[in-house]
Amino acid sequence: MNDSRPILPEADQARIEQWIHELDQFNATPGEGVTRQYLTDEEWNARLYLRREMEALGLQVEMDCMGDLLGTLPGSEPDLAPVWTGSHFDTVLHGGSFDGAAGVVTALEAVRRIIASGAPRKRNLTVVAYSAEEPARFGIGCIGSRAMAGMLTVPDLKKFCDKDGLSLYDALKARGLNPDDIESCRRKSGDVFCSLELHIEQNSVLERAGVPLGIVKAICAPLNLNVTVTGQAAHAGGMPMSERKDAFAAACEMSLALERMTRENQASEYCTGTVGSISIAPNASNIIPREASFTVDIRDCDAASKDALLTQVQTEFQAIAQRRGVGLAMTLQNNDTPAVSHPALMELLEKSCQSRGIACQQLISGPFHDSMMLASFTPIGMLFVPSRDGLSHCPEEWTDPAHLKAGAQVLGDALLELVNRDTL
Amino acid sequence: MNDSRPILPEADQARIEQWIHELDQFNATPGEGVTRQYLTDEEWNARLYLRREMEALGLQVEMDCMGDLLGTLPGSEPDLAPVWTGSHFDTVLHGGSFDGAAGVVTALEAVRRIIASGAPRKRNLTVVAYSAEEPARFGIGCIGSRAMAGMLTVPDLKKFCDKDGLSLYDALKARGLNPDDIESCRRKSGDVFCSLELHIEQNSVLERAGVPLGIVKAICAPLNLNVTVTGQAAHAGGMPMSERKDAFAAACEMSLALERMTRENQASEYCTGTVGSISIAPNASNIIPREASFTVDIRDCDAASKDALLTQVQTEFQAIAQRRGVGLAMTLQNNDTPAVSHPALMELLEKSCQSRGIACQQLISGPFHDSMMLASFTPIGMLFVPSRDGLSHCPEEWTDPAHLKAGAQVLGDALLELVNRDTL
Repeated sequence: MNDSRPILPEADQARIEQWIHELDQFNATPGEGVTRQYLTDEEWNARLYLRREMEALGLQVEMDCMGDLLGTLPGSEPDLAPVWTGSHFDTVLHGGSFDGAAGVVTALEAVRRIIASGAPRKRNLTVVAYSAEEPARFGIGCIGSRAMAGMLTVPDLKKFCDKDGLSLYDALKARGLNPDDIESCRRKSGDVFCSLELHIEQNSVLERAGVPLGIVKAICAPLNLNVTVTGQAAHAGGMPMSERKDAFAAACEMSLALERMTRENQASEYCTGTVGSISIAPNASNIIPREASFTVDIRDCDAASKDALLTQVQTEFQAIAQRRGVGLAMTLQNNDTPAVSHPALMELLEKSCQSRGIACQQLISGPFHDSMMLASFTPIGMLFVPSRDGLSHCPEEWTDPAHLKAGAQVLGDALLELVNRDTL
Repeated sequence: MNDSRPILPEADQARIEQWIHELDQFNATPGEGVTRQYLTDEEWNARLYLRREMEALGLQVEMDCMGDLLGTLPGSEPDLAPVWTGSHFDTVLHGGSFDGAAGVVTALEAVRRIIASGAPRKRNLTVVAYSAEEPARFGIGCIGSRAMAGMLTVPDLKKFCDKDGLSLYDALKARGLNPDDIESCRRKSGDVFCSLELHIEQNSVLERAGVPLGIVKAICAPLNLNVTVTGQAAHAGGMPMSERKDAFAAACEMSLALERMTRENQASEYCTGTVGSISIAPNASNIIPREASFTVDIRDCDAASKDALLTQVQTEFQAIAQRRGVGLAMTLQNNDTPAVSHPALMELLEKSCQSRGIACQQLISGPFHDSMMLASFTPIGMLFVPSRDGLSHCPEEWTDPAHLKAGAQVLGDALLELVNRDTL
């Protein structure tokens, strides 16, 4: 181990930009951001493209029954658990070029440099391009990594449908994949030595600090709650204020209660609560709303804190509904487990930054990533690169290629170190 | 004047029910409430039907350029200002059988009884079937009576459009009416001796009190404000609570502020504030809302109190927007003037109830009516009949025919008294 003297060649910024550019061509909405949703033609063709790029680097490529690609660079001791690196390659509707793709192409570049260096390697090193981290099409995210974590079953695949009512199960079959074989995706503890993932920050902490790389301490996990408030429609002029059962007013009070409880939550280092979607009925200016349906998105980097907040939110919503005399239905869609980075991997990434003279800082990831799922069976570490203005999930999403190069640099150095370690 | 001994025959409940039933046939949504929107085929055919019914009673019928029908029973001194009675015959989308229609058919029945009695009459008595009291199609209500009040101009007619973009002006032309002649609809003070309108209550004050007739003291007038809040979209996990510009959270705070200020308003006897419609963008569960557009409907029976509340609401909305760092645009669509019933007409209606041994009570009208517009040029009085469960603007809208009969009874007695009065 020689942290102070990197033995790998410089990362090639032009090569990284070229891969990003080529992936951008697999896009259902040219000119209006990048749209590459799971199992659509664009996403499927991007998968075939990535397979060819992995093979061109000399990797041995497998595709599992969820469409995850695993491109392996064999080491001298292939029976040891492999080191993984990679990210996802799908996007939201009208998303950007970097969310997910940044972690796939910097992994390819890191492996390219490791191969080019001719440095000795004991463990296998696998570049993974995960399927469907975005919940955009089937309403559930991290589909590939979730299957690897054993948190997705055949009945789940039949339950989750896209907006046209096509089930995830049938969509996989239509691509010639065998969803009944989902257990084969599953990894158990020890199967993978560790995983490193590079991702865009999707926030502006690094940009504001003027720091090019972030070391993720923990990844917040989401819980999603669907809430429906049922009141009584009535004429906006006829019904006195004191006798109303206004479903929207109740929803407003609940939304602000969520905001307040999340802000005041001292139990965890990072916590968010968002009402991002609402529909009301009959939605007419002169009729008191009969029904309000809205989504609650809570994220926290601490599982106990998140569960406590959920209970607090549910109790408060019930109290508001009771006080206003409206009906309340709450359905918990999912409640994922936050992930904590392995201290040894954080330390290695920091030392790798120091070796290259690149500034870095620790931070919490509000958004979830495939690494959140991987954490259930392997030690994880994550490297963040800055997002311009903190923007993501929109066409304006942008990361400076120089920062991608810096990330690929550090990622490659750390991976080469890891494939030669016996223990973390 | 002989209040204690009615000289008119009993109102005919079956005749009233028959007219309601026949009007119900002019309906664009059979089986799903009554839909009869201004200048649609259903509404136009209802107009022709009412014209035939007026003529069958022996009234001299005129139609003005807004489609209002005026059926006149001539008196012995036709140069005196006429007495008016009537209501509207259009409906909201999926409305009921009684909102508006109740006042038209009880006016017809009152006039039928006056004719049948052979009682002497000095003033002309005119049954008016007003066009488009509901704002349902063109976004503005009381179109017929508004034109009579001189509060509608040709440019207005060209500005207000239906959901297909057809202007009110062009819709009138398509029916062979001449909207350029709108000034001919206008009445000045003194043109009409007074007006009495019967309407369903659209609230449950009478039902709860077990009182069959209400005497309206004042009619609340609406103001409508369109509000757009502009924040910043961001990832629901990535953006910390402290840095958000959540347009929906700001809209919630504004909606609750409106509710609170309306409830706490002590300046008037009756006041309501409603957010009945909202849309947010991008409206996705995992994205902080960038924009929230909502409607504010404020009603008050006192103009000064309403204006003061509007100022208070606008100031508070601006403070909320400033505190949250979001943009705010507010557009006042209309701010109508509340109407107060003429004391002599309230007294006459009360005495007429007493003469028939029918209980009554005074109340405020939260909803507006054509009488609100008429009040700008003639003394007005209004009679309310109970609405079952207070419901209106929905298929469940219902009024007991016995209550309609009681209303027609009192209305006829009072109208016969008025056509023979020299002064109110």
